[in-house]
Amino acid sequence: MEQKIKNIGVLTSGGDAPGMNAGIRAVVRACAYHKIKCTGVFRGYQGLIDNDFEELNARSVRNIINRGGTFLKSARSRMFMTEKGRAKAYENLLSQEIDALVVIGGDGTFTGATIFNKEHNFPIIGIPGTIDNDIRGTDYTIGYDTALNTVVEAIDKIRDTANSHNRLFLVEVMGRDAGDIALNAGIGAGAEEILIPEENLGTDRLLESLKRSRKSGKTSSIIVVAEGDQIGKNIFELAEFIETNLEDYEVRVTVLGHIQRGGSPSCYDRVLASRLGIGAVDALIDGKKDIMVGIKDKKITFVPFDLAISGENEIDIDLRRVADITSI
Amino acid sequence: MEQKIKNIGVLTSGGDAPGMNAGIRAVVRACAYHKIKCTGVFRGYQGLIDNDFEELNARSVRNIINRGGTFLKSARSRMFMTEKGRAKAYENLLSQEIDALVVIGGDGTFTGATIFNKEHNFPIIGIPGTIDNDIRGTDYTIGYDTALNTVVEAIDKIRDTANSHNRLFLVEVMGRDAGDIALNAGIGAGAEEILIPEENLGTDRLLESLKRSRKSGKTSSIIVVAEGDQIGKNIFELAEFIETNLEDYEVRVTVLGHIQRGGSPSCYDRVLASRLGIGAVDALIDGKKDIMVGIKDKKITFVPFDLAISGENEIDIDLRRVADITSI
Amino acid sequence: MEQKIKNIGVLTSGGDAPGMNAGIRAVVRACAYHKIKCTGVFRGYQGLIDNDFEELNARSVRNIINRGGTFLKSARSRMFMTEKGRAKAYENLLSQEIDALVVIGGDGTFTGATIFNKEHNFPIIGIPGTIDNDIRGTDYTIGYDTALNTVVEAIDKIRDTANSHNRLFLVEVMGRDAGDIALNAGIGAGAEEILIPEENLGTDRLLESLKRSRKSGKTSSIIVVAEGDQIGKNIFELAEFIETNLEDYEVRVTVLGHIQRGGSPSCYDRVLASRLGIGAVDALIDGKKDIMVGIKDKKITFVPFDLAISGENEIDIDLRRVADITSI
Amino acid sequence: MEQKIKNIGVLTSGGDAPGMNAGIRAVVRACAYHKIKCTGVFRGYQGLIDNDFEELNARSVRNIINRGGTFLKSARSRMFMTEKGRAKAYENLLSQEIDALVVIGGDGTFTGATIFNKEHNFPIIGIPGTIDNDIRGTDYTIGYDTALNTVVEAIDKIRDTANSHNRLFLVEVMGRDAGDIALNAGIGAGAEEILIPEENLGTDRLLESLKRSRKSGKTSSIIVVAEGDQIGKNIFELAEFIETNLEDYEVRVTVLGHIQRGGSPSCYDRVLASRLGIGAVDALIDGKKDIMVGIKDKKITFVPFDLAISGENEIDIDLRRVADITSI
Repeated sequence: MEQKIKNIGVLTSGGDAPGMNAGIRAVVRACAYHKIKCTGVFRGYQGLIDNDFEELNARSVRNIINRGGTFLKSARSRMFMTEKGRAKAYENLLSQEIDALVVIGGDGTFTGATIFNKEHNFPIIGIPGTIDNDIRGTDYTIGYDTALNTVVEAIDKIRDTANSHNRLFLVEVMGRDAGDIALNAGIGAGAEEILIPEENLGTDRLLESLKRSRKSGKTSSIIVVAEGDQIGKNIFELAEFIETNLEDYEVRVTVLGHIQRGGSPSCYDRVLASRLGIGAVDALIDGKKDIMVGIKDKKITFVPFDLAISGENEIDIDLRRVADITSI
Repeated sequence: MEQKIKNIGVLTSGGDAPGMNAGIRAVVRACAYHKIKCTGVFRGYQGLIDNDFEELNARSVRNIINRGGTFLKSARSRMFMTEKGRAKAYENLLSQEIDALVVIGGDGTFTGATIFNKEHNFPIIGIPGTIDNDIRGTDYTIGYDTALNTVVEAIDKIRDTANSHNRLFLVEVMGRDAGDIALNAGIGAGAEEILIPEENLGTDRLLESLKRSRKSGKTSSIIVVAEGDQIGKNIFELAEFIETNLEDYEVRVTVLGHIQRGGSPSCYDRVLASRLGIGAVDALIDGKKDIMVGIKDKKITFVPFDLAISGENEIDIDLRRVADITSI
Repeated sequence: MEQKIKNIGVLTSGGDAPGMNAGIRAVVRACAYHKIKCTGVFRGYQGLIDNDFEELNARSVRNIINRGGTFLKSARSRMFMTEKGRAKAYENLLSQEIDALVVIGGDGTFTGATIFNKEHNFPIIGIPGTIDNDIRGTDYTIGYDTALNTVVEAIDKIRDTANSHNRLFLVEVMGRDAGDIALNAGIGAGAEEILIPEENLGTDRLLESLKRSRKSGKTSSIIVVAEGDQIGKNIFELAEFIETNLEDYEVRVTVLGHIQRGGSPSCYDRVLASRLGIGAVDALIDGKKDIMVGIKDKKITFVPFDLAISGENEIDIDLRRVADITSI
Repeated sequence: MEQKIKNIGVLTSGGDAPGMNAGIRAVVRACAYHKIKCTGVFRGYQGLIDNDFEELNARSVRNIINRGGTFLKSARSRMFMTEKGRAKAYENLLSQEIDALVVIGGDGTFTGATIFNKEHNFPIIGIPGTIDNDIRGTDYTIGYDTALNTVVEAIDKIRDTANSHNRLFLVEVMGRDAGDIALNAGIGAGAEEILIPEENLGTDRLLESLKRSRKSGKTSSIIVVAEGDQIGKNIFELAEFIETNLEDYEVRVTVLGHIQRGGSPSCYDRVLASRLGIGAVDALIDGKKDIMVGIKDKKITFVPFDLAISGENEIDIDLRRVADITSI
């Protein structure tokens, strides 16, 4: 590459995820290592428009690897969805003499990056940071592993009380379009049933399964439900449906909500974020652009943005079978 | 007491609480220590009626001190609310040759004990086990300290994401009639406002407080709300009310629910439960009955049941002031 | 008090303890509430000598209530032990126009405060912040409750592996002169034996107890040992002694060390620190000096420094009995 | 396969690891699913010799997925290392009518399985269960992910106190021959240096690195050291060496020890163990033997035992670079 990168901007965008701070830290320190200036951009793409910049050095990011959230803050920017907003952002990048961007976020973030690059031919590398694990081209996204542990720990607590009372619990977890959290955390938490958006097993199977559970001697049950409609019902309607159709079932609903986005990141998420942050800076130095850096088979990989955000989530048939067998 | 106790029954009743297992363990081992037979009763008072008994020795309760819930299971028994049910229970106790009972639970449990004792003159000692801390005559109830830690850890996670997004979060915690959890966990979690059932500060104060918060430079806020109606609104209505009356506030609701009842008990709850369990057996040996064993000023104390369940919860004015000052 | 306090300095000194940040935060916010200037002093008494000051406002302490350690840092200052060092400190306090100090720490911290006050008649209020709980005149010190939970969680993990292998574990916990951590955490963790500095039960009792344990059917055992010599042996010598004198015992040693000082503070420690911080500022406004603010029977209390650091730690006979009975 | 499997034995052997219970549970439930009898063997290979068997059904393994350790207990059996011992084991397997074994453990476990299979042509499938991740042919071993989180959480606590006191901490983690835990947890915990058995960077580099750290403005440092000799010194000698060769460094040593083996397994380890347990039963049904079931690129894979335990651990050059860059 002829033109040397001298100043890399870094931002987090979209929903926050545990490990984003570790990712920012890695970008900042990789810049320090390569003697490249690093500029933090606050509140995602909106910060580009609002000129919300701050130079970051190796010491700026100390003691953040263990913290949830993102110290650069995140936001969804409506202005960045307009051509005018993006033009303003480009202008600000130029006047700050920022040569390239690393953006940490999910599909919305990458979509924005692709459009911005098309319009302004500006080098951007994406890092997948979202608890939903719904990005193609990477085995894992930053924050997903932590969210799984958070969900499993929460359900372990619910199980204490479920066991004590012979109750049925419906637990709603995040994942509007992707059932990864529900399926993995459901297996990990020993759930009796797992309802995910990628498949509709129908109400009959659910009732049959609950009847079978009780018959087999189970005295309490936990059903993990990915958020959004399930079997055409929300989780409270589902609870009512079960109470109506099965005798002697006391059903309780828990919506885990935003605790799933927070918490100190797991070791895996910290290491992943560190690797991807360094990989992103390496990629910019190598002249790459318009791609996401991901992890595949324990190795750093690069995927074009359009591929990363394409396609629908597919269930892992193998895992579905694991869920069915272990909940016998 | 002339008549020596030879067989003590132990049961858990009402909502379960972390530390109940530690309490049962202490009762069982105190019996072993004093060479008294100990009989476990399953599913609370219902187990008395259903003849659901099991002899417990010192080894029966190994490796349970760290587990949430209650291995004897708990239940609310409708039959025990009838004279006939209680007569059946008494009959079973006699045929099992159980001389006395230790019951672990809350006000419903103690009310049942009082009535049973009046009818059948049967020695019962109560141990306060409920996360709500709404029992008079004891500084703490078993499970309360653990529940506070659970709530604070959950809000710490929510704060990660609140900070990352400049959002307002409403977090509902348990406590239909008692604001102890909300007030203490609210202070511990650094909440900006705390709404408790013992006082109605009104909507104006809330809006003023939020405006003041923002003016003072706070970029995100967390409001802890005890369950049940607050200011005449449930938590979802409250969220809507705030979004309607304040500009630019993105409000999110989290209902912590049953995770507050579970989890491995804190050291405090384990030690408290151990002390109260031993105290209950000591009391029976001393010929006491119809009382609760509690903790006051770090010492074991005894309180008549009717006193333990009397009166309304009062807010700690001192703590209210701490909340006001630290959220400035 | 005729002379109004206008500027309060706050520092942490001695070993750090979880909750110190919550204490600093409360002091800072109580100052803001009373419209008193607040000055943070870094690195304890040494910061007074080195002129290491920084003005703190209500926003300076945001998002620290949940963090272990102390953001003002702590240190043991040799210079402050000299008259010359203290004279320099006094000079700096005057030139900073600091009228009074709140010091958070343990007995060494309070001893320094007493001497400084005698020499320079400078108003100082102490807050007990130490995991050891070895201060007279307060039921609890900041950090103690968190340390107990840390120890209990660690031993829960060790028990997993102890149970899996039928092993004997010796676990060393903090407490050179005070057995409070060992005794409470030992009960909470279900230890078979607890060795504390306040009593020497002798090696015979220990061997007898272990033999009895095994005979009673226990397949694994955990012994909690307060640091420092026990029965005239350190923990490694103790392990060897047991292996030599008992057959078929595989003994393992774990020294928990400094993990006991860290970690996010428990709810109890956060609330306690908040109360004591506010109490300290209240006391200064009331014209109090040369005293420690503590908690007794759930109420704020004030104790002269010399009383707080006097006397030896005594074992709680009641708790000792609880340990003996529950480990049967 | 002509001969249908009718009775599968399952055991855990060697050092225990979090997730072993989830693995046993999956084997038991896969057997129930396929209508195969399942026999639990207690205390590893020793249980085969001692006839320590118990039939397990789907309900026998309820509520164990979240528990550390192994409820079947583990042991290292000297008798199984003798031909006579193995002959006795074989005899007992025949008289119990057990057709095949699933063994969960590490390299010692697999070595035993290979020898036993050679002598008695008995179908055995291995599942890698060890926190050390030192098995070839699988990306991860059961317990490794949990151990990483345990180490990182412990170092987070130590960092609280390190930051508060400007200290240098040496933290010893498990891994006598494999530096995987040290390297990954070191990156995850933000360690300044990581010493692993696969490389000897020498004392000069270490001193240089510490001097550079301080110069760059770091006020506290954490060095992660894999157990066993490092640079020809044990961790206490290393501490002394640093204090001798660098000025003004207060060095503290923490040996994490057996807490790394315990704890509730992470979601990843639970799901991994569930998949491998089912995979092992699938393999036996398919007529496989003398192999280990592992995970490669998120898919189930099978590896001959001799390959699984062959070769030396190699450091991941890529990760080593991540450690160097992020600790800048």
